[in-house]
Amino acid sequence: MTANRRPRRSSGRITLNDVAGAAGVSPITASRALRGERTVDPALAERVREAADRLGYVPDPAARALASQRSTQVLVLVPLLSNALFVDLLEAVHRTLFPEGFQPLIGVTHYDSAEEELLLRTYLPHRPAGLLVTGFDRSEAARQLIVHSGVPCVHLMETSAAPGVACVGFSQQDAGATITRHLLERGRKRIAFCAAQLDPRVLQRAEGYRRTLREAGLYDPRLELLSPERSSIALGARLFEDLVQRMPDVDAIFFCNDDIAQGGLLAANRMRVDVPGRIAVAGFNDLAGSAQMVPPLTTIRTPRSEVGRAGADMLLGLMRGTLAQPQCVQLDYELIVREST
Amino acid sequence: MTANRRPRRSSGRITLNDVAGAAGVSPITASRALRGERTVDPALAERVREAADRLGYVPDPAARALASQRSTQVLVLVPLLSNALFVDLLEAVHRTLFPEGFQPLIGVTHYDSAEEELLLRTYLPHRPAGLLVTGFDRSEAARQLIVHSGVPCVHLMETSAAPGVACVGFSQQDAGATITRHLLERGRKRIAFCAAQLDPRVLQRAEGYRRTLREAGLYDPRLELLSPERSSIALGARLFEDLVQRMPDVDAIFFCNDDIAQGGLLAANRMRVDVPGRIAVAGFNDLAGSAQMVPPLTTIRTPRSEVGRAGADMLLGLMRGTLAQPQCVQLDYELIVREST
Repeated sequence: MTANRRPRRSSGRITLNDVAGAAGVSPITASRALRGERTVDPALAERVREAADRLGYVPDPAARALASQRSTQVLVLVPLLSNALFVDLLEAVHRTLFPEGFQPLIGVTHYDSAEEELLLRTYLPHRPAGLLVTGFDRSEAARQLIVHSGVPCVHLMETSAAPGVACVGFSQQDAGATITRHLLERGRKRIAFCAAQLDPRVLQRAEGYRRTLREAGLYDPRLELLSPERSSIALGARLFEDLVQRMPDVDAIFFCNDDIAQGGLLAANRMRVDVPGRIAVAGFNDLAGSAQMVPPLTTIRTPRSEVGRAGADMLLGLMRGTLAQPQCVQLDYELIVREST
Repeated sequence: MTANRRPRRSSGRITLNDVAGAAGVSPITASRALRGERTVDPALAERVREAADRLGYVPDPAARALASQRSTQVLVLVPLLSNALFVDLLEAVHRTLFPEGFQPLIGVTHYDSAEEELLLRTYLPHRPAGLLVTGFDRSEAARQLIVHSGVPCVHLMETSAAPGVACVGFSQQDAGATITRHLLERGRKRIAFCAAQLDPRVLQRAEGYRRTLREAGLYDPRLELLSPERSSIALGARLFEDLVQRMPDVDAIFFCNDDIAQGGLLAANRMRVDVPGRIAVAGFNDLAGSAQMVPPLTTIRTPRSEVGRAGADMLLGLMRGTLAQPQCVQLDYELIVREST
C-alpha cells in the first residue's frame, strides 16, 4: 500500500491520495470506501465516491489486480477481421459475454503465430478472466503460455479429440465434401476449387473437395486454383476470369469463401458467362449479400454465430467453475441451395 | 515483493518461486535475471530464462506493471466491425504500431456510450501505453476518464477545433456535399438520400446532402429514407425497392455507405431498373467490391487507412514524448466517378 506516500509520478494522473484529500478522509478510508467495504460509514463512503467521480479517478491498475485477483476482461484472438466470418463470431461472443459482466477485447493475429505469441505474452500477465482463441494452429510456446497461465481457454472453429481441451467447432473437411457432392449431384464433372488465404481451415475444405472427387474418379489437380493472397471480391473476380480462360471446359466452381464467390459471380455477369447454365458457382460461409447476388449464391451456412455463442457459454462455465471439465462440441453446418448451381 | 512467500493461489499458475526453484537460485535473483539486470551473472541469467521458458512462466501481472509503469498495449475503440471501414482503419493502425513494438487491442462499443464507458473503466486501470477512440460522441464520464487517466489519446475519423485535442479525420459533411453536387452536375433533380445506422458521421453526411440541395432549391424531405437498422447489403436492396416503388420519379440515390449502395445496385439488377439510365446510384467509402459491381459504383473514397496510419503515428509521438503538443489533422477524401452515375 503506497497510499501514504507522495505521488511519485508527474503524469497529472489522479491518485487515491487526491481523492482522499478532496473527500477529507485518509487514503486508507478512501480505498476501503471505493472497494465497498461495509466498515466504512455510508455517508463517508458516499462522499468518497462523489470525490472520485468528480475528479475522474481511475483506480490503481496493478494494485487493484493484485488485491482482487479478478478481471472481467476476456481476450479473444482471431486471425483477421476482413473475413466477415470472424466479425459474426465476435458479435455472438459479445452478445453472450457482455450481459454477464465480461468485456471482450479483441486481438488480431494476421494468421501469424509470432503475432499471436506476442499478444499472449503481453496480455496474459494482466490475468484476463478468460481466453478465446481460433483453431489449433499455433506455436508450441503459445500453447505453453496458455496452459501455464491457468486462464480458462476455449478453442473456436475447429474441434480436437485431445483430452482436456475445450473447443467448439465443426468439420471443415466434411463441409467441403458436402458442397462438392452437391455439385456432382447437379451433374457437374469438371469441378474446380478456387481458394485464397490458404489458412488451416481452407486447406481442410480443400481436402474434403479432393476426397469427394477422388471417390468419384473425377479429381484433376489442374482444376485447383490456390492463391495465398487475402480473400476479397476483387480476387474472386480475377480467379474466375483466369479459370474460364485457361480451362474452358470447367462446368462448376467451388470457391472456398463467399467473398471470392461473389467476385466470381460479378465477373460472370460482366463477361456474360451464364451461371448456372454454363458454370455452376458455389461458395462457403453464407456471408452477407450472398442471397442478394444475381443469381443468388449456393453456399454452406457455417455456424459461426453458434460457435461464438456456445464457445462463450462454455468459457462462462469454466470461468465461474460451474463447468467441471473442458468439453469438445461439434456443431452442424447447412447446405443452402440457391440459383447459382 | 511476495516472492519469498509460498504461493497463495491454487490455480496451478507457475510463479516466480517455481522458476527460481527450477533454476536453483533465489526468487530475487530470478526476478533480476528476468528483468535483464546486469548485476546478474550471465550464465545464471541464462539458466533462469531457460527454466522460465521450460515452465511457461508468465511474469506477474500487476507486480510488473507496478514496477515498470510501462505497457506496450494500445486500446483501440471502434463502434462496429461489420462496417468494413473500421476494419481498414484497424489494419492501418496495426501496420503502424506493431513494428514499433506496440500491440493494438480492440474494443467494440456498438455505438453505445455505456459500453464505451465500461470498456474504458475496466481497461484504463491496466495503464495502456495509448488510446485510440472513434469520433467525439461519448458520455461526459468517458471523456473525464480519458483525460484523468493521463493516457495519450488520439480521436479518429472526425476533427475538432477544441484546443489540446489530438485528432485525425476528414469533413464528413463536405464529403456528403461533394457527392450530392456530383449528382446535380449529372443533371439529376430528384436526388434521394438513403441511410442506415444513423451514427454521428452518417448524420453529418446527411447534413452535407441537405445543404447542397437546399442551395440548389431542390431539397425535398420526402426523399430522405433514414433507417436506424444496421447497415447491410440486404437492407440496401430493401431500401432501393421501397424507394423506387413509392417515389417513381426519383432519378438518383446517394446511399450513405457502399454496402447499402451495393445492395441497391443488386436490387436494380434483379428488378431490371436501368442504372444509371433511369436512376443514378452513388455510395460512400469505396468499400471492397464496389469497383466490381455491375455497373461499377461511383463513391467517395474516404481516407480511413490514412486516418489509421496518421492517428497511430501521432499516438506514437505522444507516447514517446517526441510530439510536444496534440494536433488536429484534417485529411482529404476523393470523389471516384464510375459508371453508376
